[in-house]
Amino acid sequence: MEARPLDALNRARDKKVIVELKNGKQYLGTLRAFDIHINVTLEDTEERAEGQVTRKLGVAFIRGDTIIMISPAQ
Amino acid sequence: MEARPLDALNRARDKKVIVELKNGKQYLGTLRAFDIHINVTLEDTEERAEGQVTRKLGVAFIRGDTIIMISPAQ
Amino acid sequence: MEARPLDALNRARDKKVIVELKNGKQYLGTLRAFDIHINVTLEDTEERAEGQVTRKLGVAFIRGDTIIMISPAQ
Amino acid sequence: MEARPLDALNRARDKKVIVELKNGKQYLGTLRAFDIHINVTLEDTEERAEGQVTRKLGVAFIRGDTIIMISPAQ
Amino acid sequence: MEARPLDALNRARDKKVIVELKNGKQYLGTLRAFDIHINVTLEDTEERAEGQVTRKLGVAFIRGDTIIMISPAQ
Amino acid sequence: MEARPLDALNRARDKKVIVELKNGKQYLGTLRAFDIHINVTLEDTEERAEGQVTRKLGVAFIRGDTIIMISPAQ
Amino acid sequence: MEARPLDALNRARDKKVIVELKNGKQYLGTLRAFDIHINVTLEDTEERAEGQVTRKLGVAFIRGDTIIMISPAQ
Repeated sequence: MEARPLDALNRARDKKVIVELKNGKQYLGTLRAFDIHINVTLEDTEERAEGQVTRKLGVAFIRGDTIIMISPAQ
Repeated sequence: MEARPLDALNRARDKKVIVELKNGKQYLGTLRAFDIHINVTLEDTEERAEGQVTRKLGVAFIRGDTIIMISPAQ
Repeated sequence: MEARPLDALNRARDKKVIVELKNGKQYLGTLRAFDIHINVTLEDTEERAEGQVTRKLGVAFIRGDTIIMISPAQ
Repeated sequence: MEARPLDALNRARDKKVIVELKNGKQYLGTLRAFDIHINVTLEDTEERAEGQVTRKLGVAFIRGDTIIMISPAQ
Repeated sequence: MEARPLDALNRARDKKVIVELKNGKQYLGTLRAFDIHINVTLEDTEERAEGQVTRKLGVAFIRGDTIIMISPAQ
Repeated sequence: MEARPLDALNRARDKKVIVELKNGKQYLGTLRAFDIHINVTLEDTEERAEGQVTRKLGVAFIRGDTIIMISPAQ
Repeated sequence: MEARPLDALNRARDKKVIVELKNGKQYLGTLRAFDIHINVTLEDTEERAEGQVTRKLGVAFIRGDTIIMISPAQ
């Protein structure tokens, strides 16, 4: 059992994650870093909207207050 | 009688909960962790919209400021 | 006369209250706990929208920043 | 002359005030308490929308961040 | 030259100002007080919407986070 | 090279700047003061919407949290 | 491997970046400075909307809370 929600992000480090934003978009990439504001940095990032890849980005810094949910890709 | 609202989350730990988001979606999963910002981590998570399961996720980290309500599933 | 707004919540503890949310929904339940962020825990909770009961929940933890108003039920 | 905006609320204590909310509703009631977050407690509260009384409430605790304006009733 | 934006509000004290709100309304009144949150108190206040006076208020306490702009009336 | 974003505002002091707001409006004026919240004071201010001058204001105090972008006028 | 999300912005300093805003616009420019609020200063800035250049700006100070994502241009 884990004590803190950030432990889940810690275990996802260097793995593929889906980051879901308040504006309805998703970023899929490798989680390289996060902080207590839930600012995150992804690598090999794909932007998706409505199930379609809309853009390929290398590194993406995402501001925490725009994020709804982060989940390891399955 | 309990003194603090977070006590209710504490009693729900490792139980099924419904997390209701500001964007109208619901996440149903096992509550593994939460913090004072109400950031939560769920396991065996299902995303639902308008009563339908829209996605199955394993672990989901949900940012607290997107959450309206958390209730133990009945 | 009372000095602080939270005194009104304190007097409503263990009584039926209506919690009005920014998204237009209402929760009616027994106020068990609150904190300075106005996070609250209700028991025997009913969700209502436009005057209709839309869901029955047992315990509900409601995040303070989604709340407009709390009033003892009459 | 007064130094701080909260002085105006202090002078309105135990008097009828109109509280105007971000969602367009108004609460008319007797101002019993307020704090630095502009959380307020009213008594003998009427909710109004578009000039009509829509609900009568006894005590109402209103969360400060939903408030636009507070004015003594004339 | 002035060092801080609040100096402009200080020079406007006891003068007529226009306060422009995020909801599109304007309040025209005599600036009696303000604080670092830009909470303000006006006297002899007129509410305006789309160039028309919509309401006359005596004293109005306006919460800072609803304000876009404050300008001395010309 | 500069270390902090506010250095750019410091160099723009007493020069014409465009301030772009979240509500889509622009204010064009001489930057007299700013603080760490990005509250700003302009002089000889013009309000613009969709490329048209909609109002002339003398001094304008603009609350930082309504601002998207500030750029020296060219 | 990097420890903090801001490291990614640090490596992007003096390079071309895309800054994506909550209002749907993009700013493309050379990243000169940023701070912990993710306020940023760009130089040689182009504003884009829906894939089109809508404006050319020299220096642009962008307030952090309007930013969704920052990515080095490829």
